[in-house]
Amino acid sequence: MSGLQAIRYARGKLEVLDQLRLPHEHHYDEVATSEQAFDSIKAMRVRGAPAIAIVAALAHGVELHNGSCKASTTDETISYIDSRLDYLKLSRPTAVDLSNAITHLKTTVRSVDISGKENGAVGRSAIIDAYIAAAEEIFRKDTQTNLLIGQHGSQWLLENAPSKSADGKVSVLTHCNTGSLATSGHGTALGIIRSLHSGGHLRHAFCTETRPYNQGSRLTAFELVYEGIPSTLITDSMAGALFATKKSENNLAAVIVGADRVVRNGDTANKIGTYTLAVLAKHHALKFIVAAPTTSIDLRTEAEAGIKIEERKPEELTQISGAVIGTDGKVHIGRTERVATAHQGINVWNPAFDVTPAELIDAVVTERGVVVKGEDGTFNFQHIMPERWAEVFGSQEGGAR
Amino acid sequence: MSGLQAIRYARGKLEVLDQLRLPHEHHYDEVATSEQAFDSIKAMRVRGAPAIAIVAALAHGVELHNGSCKASTTDETISYIDSRLDYLKLSRPTAVDLSNAITHLKTTVRSVDISGKENGAVGRSAIIDAYIAAAEEIFRKDTQTNLLIGQHGSQWLLENAPSKSADGKVSVLTHCNTGSLATSGHGTALGIIRSLHSGGHLRHAFCTETRPYNQGSRLTAFELVYEGIPSTLITDSMAGALFATKKSENNLAAVIVGADRVVRNGDTANKIGTYTLAVLAKHHALKFIVAAPTTSIDLRTEAEAGIKIEERKPEELTQISGAVIGTDGKVHIGRTERVATAHQGINVWNPAFDVTPAELIDAVVTERGVVVKGEDGTFNFQHIMPERWAEVFGSQEGGAR
Repeated sequence: MSGLQAIRYARGKLEVLDQLRLPHEHHYDEVATSEQAFDSIKAMRVRGAPAIAIVAALAHGVELHNGSCKASTTDETISYIDSRLDYLKLSRPTAVDLSNAITHLKTTVRSVDISGKENGAVGRSAIIDAYIAAAEEIFRKDTQTNLLIGQHGSQWLLENAPSKSADGKVSVLTHCNTGSLATSGHGTALGIIRSLHSGGHLRHAFCTETRPYNQGSRLTAFELVYEGIPSTLITDSMAGALFATKKSENNLAAVIVGADRVVRNGDTANKIGTYTLAVLAKHHALKFIVAAPTTSIDLRTEAEAGIKIEERKPEELTQISGAVIGTDGKVHIGRTERVATAHQGINVWNPAFDVTPAELIDAVVTERGVVVKGEDGTFNFQHIMPERWAEVFGSQEGGAR
Repeated sequence: MSGLQAIRYARGKLEVLDQLRLPHEHHYDEVATSEQAFDSIKAMRVRGAPAIAIVAALAHGVELHNGSCKASTTDETISYIDSRLDYLKLSRPTAVDLSNAITHLKTTVRSVDISGKENGAVGRSAIIDAYIAAAEEIFRKDTQTNLLIGQHGSQWLLENAPSKSADGKVSVLTHCNTGSLATSGHGTALGIIRSLHSGGHLRHAFCTETRPYNQGSRLTAFELVYEGIPSTLITDSMAGALFATKKSENNLAAVIVGADRVVRNGDTANKIGTYTLAVLAKHHALKFIVAAPTTSIDLRTEAEAGIKIEERKPEELTQISGAVIGTDGKVHIGRTERVATAHQGINVWNPAFDVTPAELIDAVVTERGVVVKGEDGTFNFQHIMPERWAEVFGSQEGGAR
């Protein structure tokens, strides 16, 4: 995989892109210990649920590879690994991917066959090797998931686009950041855009600012420019005008977004502003595509009503931080200020997410394939994740539906 | 009229609120000469088409009242007034209201009956008095227009609201700034909100940030807080989520916006983001109301296709200016910085306006009454402005329609 990578890894060495310095600086921190990983996560230099889990898992793998474990027995080795993982978990206690990764790594090191080798270097090495292999597998699998989402999504869109250029290209709009910076690389919604581009099928990518936290203008715009993908930034409020005036000339075919959570019927919680784009896509007969790994599909929640929306602090709307622009009109690298963008006394409503009902979504793209809406206006994920479905609803066909 | 006023005037004295210092400072500049008015307009300390015309007209009136005219004949007096008005016109050559006001003032001073008084102080005074009266009339009339729009609009909405609280109140959303700060006072769309509030019929006002220039968060939010109107700021991207989740609990009844131009069939050009709100209002069965004085209705342009949309510079999206927030979390009055909010290398599309088709608009509220959409899905303004209609289409019934 080429292009922008938030995480660079080779056995024994991990480098993580400092996202706080983006988009004006492109700097990698070496992360060689659990402490450095903890600090990177806590300070938000790395963000995105998959990326956080990968950085934590690999950082501990790097220190193990470089001899941080001084235990003399296999029991002590497992205890040491447990203690480092428990420590790493505290860097972001609410992150489900991180918590799942830690559980998986703890199980892995316990399943190594060490009978007769409990007290020797051989047993210790077997455990450490198993840990490193499992951490690397988490990284590899996330990359693979993204690439599959990109392939499935781009193929589906090309087959279902309401319009294509004479040479078979489409344009799309995306929201928030779902790219390399949030994942092991490639990305989910942005992964579909990357796959369209690398296949020669992308005419133009539009991205929204994604107020109030500007993930679109700070991160997605950076990724698109970095990768040389033909692209344009708009404010969230311009999406309607874009669809109304630029749809035909650009062969605008779809809005592609990521997901924080997709529930059983297909209702999707994602970054605030997603729902507005879905209503606009419907009004303008554009496809509305949700890109989500199956790990984001929550079969235990039936529909929208079960999704609780976090409200964030008002200062995200009334203040903004950024690198200072000098009198020469240029960015002053390293000089950041926080400025007021609104009356500081106004009440603010600042929901972090909104919910797009299944009826406004055309396709949910996962690493296991594309699920389209059924005739009843909802999605059925049973055939792409039969084991999870059986686990939740019992093994009988159809389960609780 | 009480409440916030951008323009304070008494014969011989004019004070203008410095909008560049808003929302953190509330400071009036004394504007006693044409030069000072020119400077205020040029530097954007005063903005809004009606406000610019009023400040220019009154500033010259103030200097005339205070004896700036040293002419000894009536011809010289008229020449002096012409030269000052020609100079003021250059402060914003594209402003139609300013240009119309200047034409009207020039005509007025020429229509004064000065026969036999050409060379005396009496003739000079008659011309100067006529000028001052006409300038004050422009101010008074704009205020009156706003108040009538407020009355007509609030009454229509209360009669047509899809939902009201038990005590007969409604909530509304507005976009951009159409308030005291853009007009002589009261405002157009915000004037309807003020009238609802003063009549005890407003439950809550929501306002959008109005990216990229933040007129909503900087100006409308300031006006709402200043007037004590119950209100909440949201990002443009949150309007959909607001309608989807807060409509019933707030008795959200309408989106109310101003207009840069309403063309003959009712298609309306207004601040970018208006169209997105109109699509959302339709999806959620909210009324969509355009508040516009009849001077903004352009009978010579038939429909949307005739409206050209200005595109503005990319830096409006990729950079933002604001008062610096200190480490104490408080605004540092007087210390302003410009910061980057996006990758500076990204392409940007930055249309200043968009066009909302008549089919998405329920009512156009003017000072002469409310016009609702006909069965053919367009508006007919003939009955509220028969003279202008006759001027454009000839006197026969129906004209060119």
